[in-house]
Amino acid sequence: MRHMIFGESHGPAIGVVLEGVPAGLELDLERVQWELDRRRPGKDPTATARKEADRVEVLSGLFAGKTTGAPLAMVIYNSDQHSKDYESIRYIPRPGHGDYAGFIKSRGAQDYRGGGHFSGRLTAPLTAAGAVAKQVLARKGVWVGAHISSIYGICDAPLGELEEMKNVVNKPFPVLSDAKGEEMRQAILEAKEQQDSVGGAIECAVYGLPAGLGAPDFGCNVEGIFAQYLFAVPAVKGVDFGAGAAFSLMRGSEANDPFAVEDGRVVTTTNHAGGVNGGITNGMPVVFEATIRPTPSISLPQQSVDLRTGEETEIEIHGRHDPCIVPRAVPVIEAAAALAACAVLGI
Amino acid sequence: MRHMIFGESHGPAIGVVLEGVPAGLELDLERVQWELDRRRPGKDPTATARKEADRVEVLSGLFAGKTTGAPLAMVIYNSDQHSKDYESIRYIPRPGHGDYAGFIKSRGAQDYRGGGHFSGRLTAPLTAAGAVAKQVLARKGVWVGAHISSIYGICDAPLGELEEMKNVVNKPFPVLSDAKGEEMRQAILEAKEQQDSVGGAIECAVYGLPAGLGAPDFGCNVEGIFAQYLFAVPAVKGVDFGAGAAFSLMRGSEANDPFAVEDGRVVTTTNHAGGVNGGITNGMPVVFEATIRPTPSISLPQQSVDLRTGEETEIEIHGRHDPCIVPRAVPVIEAAAALAACAVLGI
Amino acid sequence: MRHMIFGESHGPAIGVVLEGVPAGLELDLERVQWELDRRRPGKDPTATARKEADRVEVLSGLFAGKTTGAPLAMVIYNSDQHSKDYESIRYIPRPGHGDYAGFIKSRGAQDYRGGGHFSGRLTAPLTAAGAVAKQVLARKGVWVGAHISSIYGICDAPLGELEEMKNVVNKPFPVLSDAKGEEMRQAILEAKEQQDSVGGAIECAVYGLPAGLGAPDFGCNVEGIFAQYLFAVPAVKGVDFGAGAAFSLMRGSEANDPFAVEDGRVVTTTNHAGGVNGGITNGMPVVFEATIRPTPSISLPQQSVDLRTGEETEIEIHGRHDPCIVPRAVPVIEAAAALAACAVLGI
Amino acid sequence: MRHMIFGESHGPAIGVVLEGVPAGLELDLERVQWELDRRRPGKDPTATARKEADRVEVLSGLFAGKTTGAPLAMVIYNSDQHSKDYESIRYIPRPGHGDYAGFIKSRGAQDYRGGGHFSGRLTAPLTAAGAVAKQVLARKGVWVGAHISSIYGICDAPLGELEEMKNVVNKPFPVLSDAKGEEMRQAILEAKEQQDSVGGAIECAVYGLPAGLGAPDFGCNVEGIFAQYLFAVPAVKGVDFGAGAAFSLMRGSEANDPFAVEDGRVVTTTNHAGGVNGGITNGMPVVFEATIRPTPSISLPQQSVDLRTGEETEIEIHGRHDPCIVPRAVPVIEAAAALAACAVLGI
Repeated sequence: MRHMIFGESHGPAIGVVLEGVPAGLELDLERVQWELDRRRPGKDPTATARKEADRVEVLSGLFAGKTTGAPLAMVIYNSDQHSKDYESIRYIPRPGHGDYAGFIKSRGAQDYRGGGHFSGRLTAPLTAAGAVAKQVLARKGVWVGAHISSIYGICDAPLGELEEMKNVVNKPFPVLSDAKGEEMRQAILEAKEQQDSVGGAIECAVYGLPAGLGAPDFGCNVEGIFAQYLFAVPAVKGVDFGAGAAFSLMRGSEANDPFAVEDGRVVTTTNHAGGVNGGITNGMPVVFEATIRPTPSISLPQQSVDLRTGEETEIEIHGRHDPCIVPRAVPVIEAAAALAACAVLGI
Repeated sequence: MRHMIFGESHGPAIGVVLEGVPAGLELDLERVQWELDRRRPGKDPTATARKEADRVEVLSGLFAGKTTGAPLAMVIYNSDQHSKDYESIRYIPRPGHGDYAGFIKSRGAQDYRGGGHFSGRLTAPLTAAGAVAKQVLARKGVWVGAHISSIYGICDAPLGELEEMKNVVNKPFPVLSDAKGEEMRQAILEAKEQQDSVGGAIECAVYGLPAGLGAPDFGCNVEGIFAQYLFAVPAVKGVDFGAGAAFSLMRGSEANDPFAVEDGRVVTTTNHAGGVNGGITNGMPVVFEATIRPTPSISLPQQSVDLRTGEETEIEIHGRHDPCIVPRAVPVIEAAAALAACAVLGI
Repeated sequence: MRHMIFGESHGPAIGVVLEGVPAGLELDLERVQWELDRRRPGKDPTATARKEADRVEVLSGLFAGKTTGAPLAMVIYNSDQHSKDYESIRYIPRPGHGDYAGFIKSRGAQDYRGGGHFSGRLTAPLTAAGAVAKQVLARKGVWVGAHISSIYGICDAPLGELEEMKNVVNKPFPVLSDAKGEEMRQAILEAKEQQDSVGGAIECAVYGLPAGLGAPDFGCNVEGIFAQYLFAVPAVKGVDFGAGAAFSLMRGSEANDPFAVEDGRVVTTTNHAGGVNGGITNGMPVVFEATIRPTPSISLPQQSVDLRTGEETEIEIHGRHDPCIVPRAVPVIEAAAALAACAVLGI
Repeated sequence: MRHMIFGESHGPAIGVVLEGVPAGLELDLERVQWELDRRRPGKDPTATARKEADRVEVLSGLFAGKTTGAPLAMVIYNSDQHSKDYESIRYIPRPGHGDYAGFIKSRGAQDYRGGGHFSGRLTAPLTAAGAVAKQVLARKGVWVGAHISSIYGICDAPLGELEEMKNVVNKPFPVLSDAKGEEMRQAILEAKEQQDSVGGAIECAVYGLPAGLGAPDFGCNVEGIFAQYLFAVPAVKGVDFGAGAAFSLMRGSEANDPFAVEDGRVVTTTNHAGGVNGGITNGMPVVFEATIRPTPSISLPQQSVDLRTGEETEIEIHGRHDPCIVPRAVPVIEAAAALAACAVLGI
């Protein structure tokens, strides 16, 4: 399964083409829409007040309710946008955004309205593609779920069992500990009040991948495959498997996962490796954490440069922005992981 | 430039084929050997006492001292190995190693001697390929250097300027702060005494990449490209760009890198983004940290399973192993980064 | 530049996403439409009487008239179709079509209406993508043009010079010799009267590619790259470069292209090699011929099998079909060649 | 399965790395050597008198007689060569060879001795890789075989049944009709006497591929996949499936393969499509013909250019060359087809 995402925030439409979807899958489009609704803003005061209908339409690859095996094209038409808001920032790149890098790459030709192709809105078609991938995985007994593992230093409870995680994804604020979730929400609202934003992290697990998938080699490595999908999600700046950064603080005797036999199956009694050894799945859940940077769009004045004159200047970003992108990014990270899991399975 | 690495620890040879090397490069083979020597064991009491000559030989792609543009094949013939040592562990996977995952993948057919294709020895051809990539990059004004950023929680000084980093790579124990390096060495020796091992992290920077390379899209994303190369290095469990995991603790106002003008060039006054915004280089050094897990090979008894009988058992690993792989991994991480930088440059 | 084509003949839309289009290109959309009009039916009694408006719309990647460097999505909405016509053939595969192979692949789930994703209509988005590629190539001084080289054994005059070829592509029936073209048209009309169809061949040349592109190796080979694009065009069954099949009748002394110097440039006095030696361009035009099979859709009764009962049966195909697809395939072959030329140029 | 071929005619070694070989295959190395012997010169007066031992050695990926699933590296060390012979042609490209294109690509840095990386010798590692692929395919019930279909216009009998083809591959001069083979040999010897060479064609069939593999889309198309492997074989200038170029002379009523039921299986009573419809296998043998250009190395004087002075000059090529490469190319074409068949099967 290969995908190509297209669209700009203020263009006619955003969408995705997904090639190699197995034929004959009864695609649950309401479930695809449900995943899109998970990432939609406006559900909680911690998110932007912008309204995005985000209705997905299928242009191809689906016939009589089933996937045909031909490329599946899904599109979300953009409704009217306030494009005027962005004229002022055309030549004054917003710190932390792709504006400057994109300006140089395109020699000034990029669609600068609302972030254009760099917009977080582009995670909507990714979420749709991931929702299809999840349905493909379900037929293989594979399930993907994530939770907010931390926001501004406030940490959720550690990753739960499959059943507990299945419960989490239905929550509007997907955490294991609702008490910790409340603290996180306070931290977001506080940042919002101060015209600022906060970062965090998302922990995700893929349950049900059999042992023996992948290879140590470049291009075949399970961690490398997941990372490639995850870093294509805007705002992801780090990807760590299993114990992740904590490995740097560990001794081998702590880090190594002891083998044991459980119900006749070889398992490890801990999962510091995050389900991958030597680039190959070991049958335990594939677990990783993705670090999400704070939303770069903040209303506080910031230092920038006017690219026309080459002179330093101040920029103030107006408009409605998420003070924290982490909660809305949970289904996006799951989507990227689902596509990666399909790749690892050779689907 | 595409590469394929082959070989097993106890087979006749290990090596790499590097396709797409630009023609006409006067290849400095001594410099390639010098990089291999950097990762060679036996230089320091903190490393394994094993002797590995690791002399690289070029089989193709080089003529009259210059690359021809045809695939460059480099090979390192293995000298005699103590293959008997490994017979005992054939069916008893070592915790933390790829033994079990590889056993399932190959249905028992893998070369189990010395880790086989999973061996850390396979980083030698990767280092050789990276040494070639570095020479290709040098012609473009791009330089790659790394230092040990932490071992067992002891942190080196923060990443230095280009000139300081150029000095670090010549050190046998590549740290910026030699005092911190001494502490790290003590931590390693202590672990060694206790038949244990320790993990750490390596910070690496690529200087000189122009702004505007890459794209936000899957497969073109600079961070995704680097990650794919880095996770193909055994023992790497996390890859974080710029501020990395610290982004999760930050506010937008701290995380955003302010733009400024310096010598007529647009720069950022901080580099929390690690040189990449929106998947595209922004002209600042591309900086990342790779987490290296503790060497799984420790002499302490560990819990495993006998794959023949399906019963739990204990395993004791004998032989000479690195109590900490981090110092020797520094040139390997640089090599992976150099290959990634070539990919980003479209070489 | 990578592309993904989607859509079905009777679905809501067909289209293409083109990734990696250089930014800043002033895209001439009328020229794109002009190329689509070249392949549109209904211009000549030799083609199907079906009406296809085929208006291309851009959904992304274009801003203020210029390409942005972000994925360019182009879509053609399908107008109402006579979907009933096809119900009868759902389980009775049409000989020569992809019906049976597609049925097995999709286990009966494919969209069988009008050929679904196998329809010749899918060459419309390919033509659009190629029209963009041609504009990219124009900036590099590269021009692509084709003519009908034969239909049912009636051969056109041999490939002309660049100026002559530029004239041919404007003709409704693109041949060098209009007299031969008239003979071909008669052969098509005769086949049509007899409820049959005819095959032919298209010769195409890419002018202006510099020498030294490509490599002999798998995946980098110029002929292999072109072939991959060309065989993705429905109905193409053979691809031959330069003298092509005639090489099998030749001696080396005839086949070898003598080198000469012309205006200070090294050229060959003949171009039997079709511009490629050792998988690398030699500076002469890249010339190839693509064999186009006769349209499989004919009204004559044919032998088939009812896939429900597994019994042999007869099939009669109704509806309006092209008695010869070759004339309409000319801009399609050019489009595939233009995309291949971009790939060879590393665009 | 991905492969990378390396080496030069007069370098230390030539070889191939084959990634993704399924683990646990008992590799018959004598059979690999047998395939190499099939392409070895010196068996027949129609071939070059050069001696090439071509002993294949395995450097990795094989353990205790079985493939391990790790990259399989095979190498053939070059014995001493007459390198002096080639000094004279360093700057005077041989017509029909890759000399000039390679010179431009490498800006003069290529290994010009014996064709360097462009040498037909590089088909030896390809043959070895294909021999491994054939053993992988055998476990899936797939068999690949080819015969000389024509030399200098003298045509062999048409493609035979599986059993007949199995007999052909054991012949030193692999044709179905030995009488025709004798005529071909005469044509070769006549050309040889006249210091010239002749071209021809090879027809190859892949038996046993199930229906439903592939897709119409770019990159997934069965014909496109085969073509990419075949055009990477030096001297292949055309690839035609099934009826091939003859499609251009046909009507649809002749070209379409009628469906029938045979032993409960859906088959076609003819195989003009060469086993592929709509880019997907239809269960019939995949059949194609590859056109092989005459050996460019001929002793007759030819017109060339001295690249140092830019002046026209004559070149005479000395040394021992094949007056016809077609017979020795038969196992090479089979090898390319076997690798393509693995790709189509997703191996």
